[in-house]
Amino acid sequence: MADTRSNSRVAALLIDLQRDGGDALHRQIEGSIREAIRSGRLRVGTPLPPTRALAADLGVSRGVVVEAYQQLVAEGYLTSRTGGYTEVAIGSEPAVPAEPAAPVRPPLIDFGYGRSDVSNFPRSAWLRSIRRVLADAPNERFLYLSGRGMPELRQALADYLNRVRGASVDPDHVVIVNGYAQGIALIIGVLAGSGARRLAVEDPSADDDARPVAAAAGLSVVGVPVGEDGIRVDALERTDADALVLTPSHQWPTGGVLSAESRAAVLRWATRRGAVVIEDDYDAEYRYDRAPIGAIQGLAPDSVVYAGSASKTLAPGLRLGWLVVPGGLVDAVAAAKITADRGSPALDQLVFADFLTRGEFDRHLRRMRPIYRRRRDLLLTALRDRAPLLRPAGIAAGLHLVAWLPPDLDEATVVAAAARRGVAVHGVTPYRLSSAGPGGLIFGYSALSESSIVDGVALIGEVLDELRPES
Amino acid sequence: MADTRSNSRVAALLIDLQRDGGDALHRQIEGSIREAIRSGRLRVGTPLPPTRALAADLGVSRGVVVEAYQQLVAEGYLTSRTGGYTEVAIGSEPAVPAEPAAPVRPPLIDFGYGRSDVSNFPRSAWLRSIRRVLADAPNERFLYLSGRGMPELRQALADYLNRVRGASVDPDHVVIVNGYAQGIALIIGVLAGSGARRLAVEDPSADDDARPVAAAAGLSVVGVPVGEDGIRVDALERTDADALVLTPSHQWPTGGVLSAESRAAVLRWATRRGAVVIEDDYDAEYRYDRAPIGAIQGLAPDSVVYAGSASKTLAPGLRLGWLVVPGGLVDAVAAAKITADRGSPALDQLVFADFLTRGEFDRHLRRMRPIYRRRRDLLLTALRDRAPLLRPAGIAAGLHLVAWLPPDLDEATVVAAAARRGVAVHGVTPYRLSSAGPGGLIFGYSALSESSIVDGVALIGEVLDELRPES
Repeated sequence: MADTRSNSRVAALLIDLQRDGGDALHRQIEGSIREAIRSGRLRVGTPLPPTRALAADLGVSRGVVVEAYQQLVAEGYLTSRTGGYTEVAIGSEPAVPAEPAAPVRPPLIDFGYGRSDVSNFPRSAWLRSIRRVLADAPNERFLYLSGRGMPELRQALADYLNRVRGASVDPDHVVIVNGYAQGIALIIGVLAGSGARRLAVEDPSADDDARPVAAAAGLSVVGVPVGEDGIRVDALERTDADALVLTPSHQWPTGGVLSAESRAAVLRWATRRGAVVIEDDYDAEYRYDRAPIGAIQGLAPDSVVYAGSASKTLAPGLRLGWLVVPGGLVDAVAAAKITADRGSPALDQLVFADFLTRGEFDRHLRRMRPIYRRRRDLLLTALRDRAPLLRPAGIAAGLHLVAWLPPDLDEATVVAAAARRGVAVHGVTPYRLSSAGPGGLIFGYSALSESSIVDGVALIGEVLDELRPES
Repeated sequence: MADTRSNSRVAALLIDLQRDGGDALHRQIEGSIREAIRSGRLRVGTPLPPTRALAADLGVSRGVVVEAYQQLVAEGYLTSRTGGYTEVAIGSEPAVPAEPAAPVRPPLIDFGYGRSDVSNFPRSAWLRSIRRVLADAPNERFLYLSGRGMPELRQALADYLNRVRGASVDPDHVVIVNGYAQGIALIIGVLAGSGARRLAVEDPSADDDARPVAAAAGLSVVGVPVGEDGIRVDALERTDADALVLTPSHQWPTGGVLSAESRAAVLRWATRRGAVVIEDDYDAEYRYDRAPIGAIQGLAPDSVVYAGSASKTLAPGLRLGWLVVPGGLVDAVAAAKITADRGSPALDQLVFADFLTRGEFDRHLRRMRPIYRRRRDLLLTALRDRAPLLRPAGIAAGLHLVAWLPPDLDEATVVAAAARRGVAVHGVTPYRLSSAGPGGLIFGYSALSESSIVDGVALIGEVLDELRPES
């Protein structure tokens, strides 16, 4: 490298000028650029610095650089482009590198959960919010942040959650995070640091966030069985834990909705034990047939940590999430956020705040709800017509449902046979902590076309007919 | 709450309709909204749903909702706005909540480090990149992400670092993170998980990232003294550690530049021990007087983790950082990133990739370099003229310099006396692991106006004159 011998600077780092004897300066510049292109360090399409800038950086006259560029253009290494700049003409293509571990043969129809319909992402409205933020945001909003997040977004979310989710939110209790996964990791870290030993989770429940994070933090994880109406409070009563992760509005994955009586019982359990309830409100915005279920946080803001995100409503790629934390924990959670990454990106927060306060978020949800409802209705019809052995449940809300298998059909066998037909569908069993419980299939329908839904269910119906031809 | 008794939906959650007897429906709607406004749940400026939408949600005729709204407008609770919507007219103002722990009386002139000049953030160019990304990005870019980050950005960064920093970067070895703090936390977590026990850091060095993270991960932290030219390799030779955090291009805070011989010695130390060098390349883009110093990563890509960010070049609020990780560690670091937060925000990554590949980043640096150089030159002149007792060092690069105190002046006394005059300046001593070493002041100059620089130094000069009147 040229570190100490050349007087080149930033863009000229690859050029190793030796002034005492040796080749002419323009030859040295040519040679360095040529070698950089050959070795792949300068890739095709890379713009070279303007001759004037490079000459100044190298401390040579501009003519020297012009001569070097011209030679390399003549040799085909460089090319002159409109606009007066020069770029690398040959070498390896700047191909987009392959994603690691891409499946060799993706399924033709994927009922996998968690894939929002990002083809409906409100790009124009989002751009309008960005334009306003870039025009209006004070400079200091670009500096380091508080652990809680931007005050504009905390206020907008408090207003939204109080209005739409029946929550009881003080903006000072909101902590902005990069999605639910980070949020649950921060909370569990804080609880573990303050002496928590056992985390209760629903059984079945998601296996890729709270459970591994708790295990890594040294907490033991205990499952509480779930019935048709969400967590079974009789079983919870017998559970010894310092915190409980709960999906009261739409149990994941089985879809049950916790009754008013059970909610009160959960909160009594928490109060009696001094335990914290972590409410994962992952898809409450989509509710199709009945009254919306308010957040349990609104009933007991001092016992409940509320967690939400834009992953299901807008796009997972935004990595926008939020926690509402009881007063006694919020400083610790904000401090943990600072330690983790110094706060979430500023512009994204301001854009989402603008998007919320201007009613764009409500508008987007109003637009998406009938789209998802229609897909759900199609799925239910297809299940009834093409796979009548399956018994759908948890259909009132969200972006997925569970269809229970008859007891004599083995879940893993069905899932494997469907995969051989090109249909990806998850079973419920892998999400159980105990091995007991009926088999079922999880149908995520939010990102599938209507024809894919019908075709996929028909293929699964054929699988079921083959596995149980007598039915 | 209205959970089970009403047939209202999302925005209508606050409205508790009872159909069997009781008040007329429009009276019930009025009462619910009035109560929500009084209690602060609906804040001034909050838009109400369109009458048609609310009526559909509640299962009442539109006239009922219109009547309720009209009554509340008449009473002054609501107001009709142009555009045909109705919003809350009274109640508590949606004030921006106060930032926690704001200093009661901020310093008049703040030489604090790490505050980029965000008033020069390239808002227009950034918006152009956003517009292109929102127009062109394929839908799947909005979904969940790989732990490494967007392929477009990893390629653009590899090209940039190879071209400008003399690095040797394969895009598959890049992991996008939310700034340096998250990057160092991920690396230290991976190293701790693979058996590392001791982390070496420069002494003095930053006290708010690697050191607390390592301690929290159970590593012991050992300081290696720093001389005028960066880390002292004679001391490093005697150091037993599994990893070393290094600022070779511009030691933080003392400003030394590691010589070619010392770089080779550091790498020999690492190879001999199987240790990892973590290169914190925090401000290399700003170099004023001499050749740029290439990244040490380019010399030994299999032993060095390179860490960079956009915090000093663009804005800390972006939370954009990157790691270049040796092949044997990159999968583990990417997995740790997924566990931490499922990947950095997608749009931000695509925007920065566009910004880099179109040469906007180079253009921004070319614009900023003379601005910062002029501030540095002014600072040096002011120090010479107004505070000649101080001896500046580390002036060749970056956004700060250290000015050493004469041995008979106590650093803490000077810092406190400056603060009483309204000048914030940090001492070097708080950043030392050992107590030994001369006293000095850290002057961050990147975010100060030219007059503030001159006035601030003059005030410090007065402080020094008072503390040592004989000089």
